[in-house]
Amino acid sequence: MIKRLVDIGAVKFGAFKLSSGLESPFYVDLRSVLGEPELFQWVIERYEAVLSGLEFDVIIGVATGGIPYASVLGYRLKKPMGYVRDEAKGYGTGRQIEGADVAGKRAAVVDDVLTTGKSVLNAIRAVRASGGEVAGVVVFLDRGQCGAEAVKREAGVYVYSVYKMRELLEELRPHIGEERYRSVLDYLSQWRC
Amino acid sequence: MIKRLVDIGAVKFGAFKLSSGLESPFYVDLRSVLGEPELFQWVIERYEAVLSGLEFDVIIGVATGGIPYASVLGYRLKKPMGYVRDEAKGYGTGRQIEGADVAGKRAAVVDDVLTTGKSVLNAIRAVRASGGEVAGVVVFLDRGQCGAEAVKREAGVYVYSVYKMRELLEELRPHIGEERYRSVLDYLSQWRC
Repeated sequence: MIKRLVDIGAVKFGAFKLSSGLESPFYVDLRSVLGEPELFQWVIERYEAVLSGLEFDVIIGVATGGIPYASVLGYRLKKPMGYVRDEAKGYGTGRQIEGADVAGKRAAVVDDVLTTGKSVLNAIRAVRASGGEVAGVVVFLDRGQCGAEAVKREAGVYVYSVYKMRELLEELRPHIGEERYRSVLDYLSQWRC
Repeated sequence: MIKRLVDIGAVKFGAFKLSSGLESPFYVDLRSVLGEPELFQWVIERYEAVLSGLEFDVIIGVATGGIPYASVLGYRLKKPMGYVRDEAKGYGTGRQIEGADVAGKRAAVVDDVLTTGKSVLNAIRAVRASGGEVAGVVVFLDRGQCGAEAVKREAGVYVYSVYKMRELLEELRPHIGEERYRSVLDYLSQWRC
């Protein structure tokens, strides 16, 4: 299944500019997984395996990339689910968290990819501002660029990942060639957290 | 289950200003359903019953309210799934549809509530601009304010709803009292499409 991530372009190699402004020799877009029913199921199962080690009451997705995964996980695990918007909607309810009420609850925050930790830190603040606590953050891929360390340092919350990029890179090694493998490894090695 | 929608505030009565700017004696916010696992399952089953009458290849949710429902439906029906963003993201891929490729495919567009039809028409344009066709639109609630007629007239696409507001009102009648029932019915009767 891992190779499928490359086949469908969920993991791409080249020269990319991330939303954080950083340059990168690889780009991960888990949203393309949504178009692959079998891969989507496999990714959900991986998330569930990680979540099984966490005690929580509600699942909170980080908009927009984390919403599909949080929705299916909430549905499958029969847990209340919600999502954090980037900013409170101007009309209607004006809440920053839509869906489940987190007051007095332990939330598992779910996103697809972790880079700097910025959007996850925003979600943790929103959960706490709504009276909830965060049991942990679960992502499919931690890009290994000190995001998890930033979340631990700034919010005291641990980030659990299905894959760290180095782990994914090792599994992809036979499929992407030595040169590409080395260039990404060099890129990742520059991150001293 | 219908009464649960009122109990949890998914259907509220009072004086509201909708995102479209319209005033309304009722407000429907299906996102609060996400916090109620049993109700969420029941709503998904209702969507599935309506979708079973439609021939389609992919499911496209309308951001943000339609994404949780489209995600679980795609997962359960093992269909490729995606979602239309309000506007193409400035970084990364820059696509207006995330997830499934709709080129050459028939899409079922899924949203939670239909009012004027504006966001659904935007989604239909995005699907067509990406080379796909729209088999139909499926919403949980059509507010009965000429949105479905606008979508049919402007895009030639039929809107299937689990509930029209009048149908929901009839089922809620015993729970909301005659006065409230009458005021909402009067409000709905002003809409001549």
